[in-house]
Amino acid sequence: MSQNVYDQGEFFENYIKLDRQTKGLDGAPEWLQLRTMLPELKGARVLDLGCGFGWFSRFARSEGAAHVRGIDLSTKMLDKARRMTSDDAITYEKADLEDLVLLETEYNVVFSALTFHYIASLPRLVAEISKSLKRGGRLVFSVEHPLFTAPTTPSLIVDKDTGRTVWQVDAYQQEGIRTRTWFVGGVRKQHRTVGTYINLLLSSGLRLTDFVEWCPSEEELAKNPGWDVELIRPTFLLIGATKD
Amino acid sequence: MSQNVYDQGEFFENYIKLDRQTKGLDGAPEWLQLRTMLPELKGARVLDLGCGFGWFSRFARSEGAAHVRGIDLSTKMLDKARRMTSDDAITYEKADLEDLVLLETEYNVVFSALTFHYIASLPRLVAEISKSLKRGGRLVFSVEHPLFTAPTTPSLIVDKDTGRTVWQVDAYQQEGIRTRTWFVGGVRKQHRTVGTYINLLLSSGLRLTDFVEWCPSEEELAKNPGWDVELIRPTFLLIGATKD
Repeated sequence: MSQNVYDQGEFFENYIKLDRQTKGLDGAPEWLQLRTMLPELKGARVLDLGCGFGWFSRFARSEGAAHVRGIDLSTKMLDKARRMTSDDAITYEKADLEDLVLLETEYNVVFSALTFHYIASLPRLVAEISKSLKRGGRLVFSVEHPLFTAPTTPSLIVDKDTGRTVWQVDAYQQEGIRTRTWFVGGVRKQHRTVGTYINLLLSSGLRLTDFVEWCPSEEELAKNPGWDVELIRPTFLLIGATKD
Repeated sequence: MSQNVYDQGEFFENYIKLDRQTKGLDGAPEWLQLRTMLPELKGARVLDLGCGFGWFSRFARSEGAAHVRGIDLSTKMLDKARRMTSDDAITYEKADLEDLVLLETEYNVVFSALTFHYIASLPRLVAEISKSLKRGGRLVFSVEHPLFTAPTTPSLIVDKDTGRTVWQVDAYQQEGIRTRTWFVGGVRKQHRTVGTYINLLLSSGLRLTDFVEWCPSEEELAKNPGWDVELIRPTFLLIGATKD
């Protein structure tokens, strides 16, 4: 059973204030690049894993998707998604991705934003996704970058000897749970290496087509000077793959 | 023109004492995994970029390769390679990979060990390699891992607050020259992100098939306790790709 931090009152009250929740997809800086990885959505059958407030589900329908199935573990997220949606071709559903079972060759597109790094049984889930994709179908997802999740205790410090701001990496190759404070303490994430993400795709019969370690453009940096931390180490990894 | 540190006396005298030079391929811990990425070599036409003392060239011939062309920039390395080889089907050649031009569909296998991170014009070289590969041909190479090359000043320190040994990353997204001390000062390497290596392959029409961030096994760690630094961050990235 997954941890469901999203339904904790204190977490939820803070989470809903994030730009990416109040402004939707356009509030997420990495969305522009993730969007380029998507195929034509017109007429597509789409699965949205970790759909949250349904921003992507509604986007897919606005692009002409035939049907979108949004899945999340959080009752609060789904309640809000349903309130924000009036569209019979979007189905929201509460389920745990740790044991989700999918039908064969059902989807043209499987999308997932910042969800897979919570899933312990990701190899099982990726195999289900691959099975459920039609030939030529696409998996497009984002996760917290392995360089971001690697440290047992995350710390960005100013090194006294050199004056550089540095990200301290102590356990890149040791995969498993990382416990973080994010609005509340005890938020559990799964650290995996870049190699593990890539090999999960390859061993599930998917072909890697897109790999972006998100970095702000100079223009974005000028508008958001605080994003320069992204030059030190990326926060987001965006991946696209095709079922041949 | 590439920097040719290998022909500097002081560098060379130290370099030839490394296990991977005195013992050949078996002195390189990552070789076992790199070897699994190679296709059947029997009858293959093979190109070895940065051939050094020719260890791989001779291995490929011992596996039945029809012909091996080994290329290096270092006169000293090539002289020694020639002294160690008596095989008319191996050709050693001095050339700068910065401006190497290859023929179309000539090779079944292109191999390169720990060389590409010296090459400034790697996009050009990968396009040449892709052009020169026959259909179904393989590119197999190793480089210093981007996490290893990222810091402007490499430092592995003990963090006073936590007692952890940490690798300090300050500029992962800033690609370009990193000047290192390795036997001698002023050794210039090219830092590239993981994304850049992967996208160079994809944009040159190659399909990624193998991606290994080398890590010692428990058995290897027991024999070589100092290798535990590899758990903090990998030194070697091993990649295999196919020309479809």
